[in-house]
Amino acid sequence: MDDNRQRGIGVFDSGIGGLTVVRALMERLPEENIVYFGDSARVPYGTKSPETVLGFARENLEFLKSRNIKLVVVACNTVSAVALPILKAEEKMPVTGVLLPGALAASKTTKSGKVAVIGTTATIHSGAYEKALLAINPDLEIFSQACPLFVSLAEEGWLDNEVARLVAREYLEPVVKFGVDTLVLGCTHYPLLKGVISEVMGEGVKLVDSANECAIEVEKILEEKNLRKLAGDAGGIKVFMSDVPYKFREIGERFLGRSLGEVTKIRG
Amino acid sequence: MDDNRQRGIGVFDSGIGGLTVVRALMERLPEENIVYFGDSARVPYGTKSPETVLGFARENLEFLKSRNIKLVVVACNTVSAVALPILKAEEKMPVTGVLLPGALAASKTTKSGKVAVIGTTATIHSGAYEKALLAINPDLEIFSQACPLFVSLAEEGWLDNEVARLVAREYLEPVVKFGVDTLVLGCTHYPLLKGVISEVMGEGVKLVDSANECAIEVEKILEEKNLRKLAGDAGGIKVFMSDVPYKFREIGERFLGRSLGEVTKIRG
Repeated sequence: MDDNRQRGIGVFDSGIGGLTVVRALMERLPEENIVYFGDSARVPYGTKSPETVLGFARENLEFLKSRNIKLVVVACNTVSAVALPILKAEEKMPVTGVLLPGALAASKTTKSGKVAVIGTTATIHSGAYEKALLAINPDLEIFSQACPLFVSLAEEGWLDNEVARLVAREYLEPVVKFGVDTLVLGCTHYPLLKGVISEVMGEGVKLVDSANECAIEVEKILEEKNLRKLAGDAGGIKVFMSDVPYKFREIGERFLGRSLGEVTKIRG
Repeated sequence: MDDNRQRGIGVFDSGIGGLTVVRALMERLPEENIVYFGDSARVPYGTKSPETVLGFARENLEFLKSRNIKLVVVACNTVSAVALPILKAEEKMPVTGVLLPGALAASKTTKSGKVAVIGTTATIHSGAYEKALLAINPDLEIFSQACPLFVSLAEEGWLDNEVARLVAREYLEPVVKFGVDTLVLGCTHYPLLKGVISEVMGEGVKLVDSANECAIEVEKILEEKNLRKLAGDAGGIKVFMSDVPYKFREIGERFLGRSLGEVTKIRG
């Protein structure tokens, strides 16, 4: 008989940024098998409308369900911001995202109560981080800033040059002026730019990314639902992509922090 | 009976950049009706693999064929570079792109015989511009440079700020060193950045974009095939998009140079 506990954890993202979440999951839950789908044929999501993003998210979730999984992690901030409540309502399987874990981490980190969130245009426009942060602590003061060019910089591998520094200054100077002690990196690409972001924000500001908190949340759900894999072999990862573009492996392995193994292209 | 001449001209692009080509078509052939499809749900194409771009292009062409057209203009340099010969071979209707017109314009413009081409990663990797230029004139010396961040800058509306200038310098300094008198803007987004590109390249360098040459080519095909619309009402434009994202109308009208009228969202 099929034991649900032995099924994999499904993770999807608009592209390869979600591999930073997979990395945190593999560190925390090394015995689990992971099925990853990256929609690199239609990346980015963060510049597109909420309806289009919801449509893509539904298709990605359907694909993962065909791969024998027990839980879905939406490793994309844009999808987490604009579509997660709907996906949860439609799906029987547990579905979790990166937004609430990020908001929780920020609320635990801040001492001054002044928090900033940076993300894609779609994420920032949704106001979802603000809502989540205020639901946790209504006294927080929040500054939100869309930084659309950060994704292109990360994909171009311009992480620490003059252009990256200038773009970071352009977007973050209003945030610096507002004066926060915590900055949520509300896009899976942004951790790659931590260096220049920190430089502009200054030493006193803590950067929060959702990957670790998301892995803690996944562990909690698996415990609650009695879905943890039984002790046995170490887990593995199976990667599916809707496109396998130029330089994909190089950038993907930078995100995952290890070899990607075999990558299967579907659709596209 | 259906008169082929009264049908529209179909134009597709990965997003809204192709509206610069529509603008040139409307100026040269004001009586023609135009059906535009922009695949904004899957934009950009220039970072994706040739197989994925070909698959998208086939779908876009099928959509336009359902709208009663007589000729297809591929207003996307990436598709023109990686998929045009295949599309032409598969399709009975005349299909034309922006690459050959751009190469022709450059070969007429250059005096020194040293020409540069800038474009997306996919366009430059294909080597299609080099092949086309050398087929026209085997004595040309060609320098090719991918400028992936230019698309994001154009979409962000950062056309004339410090970031745009620095990115332009970063990409174009090797081109300046090579020493050309003609630069082909091998991506429909790049004409928006003409100002900073010219500044970096210097006064002696002529910038060539394909839109006007493409309109001349379309006129020639219509004449040859006896497909010009009969004298009568002025033509119009019908715009279809696979996504209607935030700020779409503002950016689209900047490209088209006039009002977009009604925009219909399909798929997505």
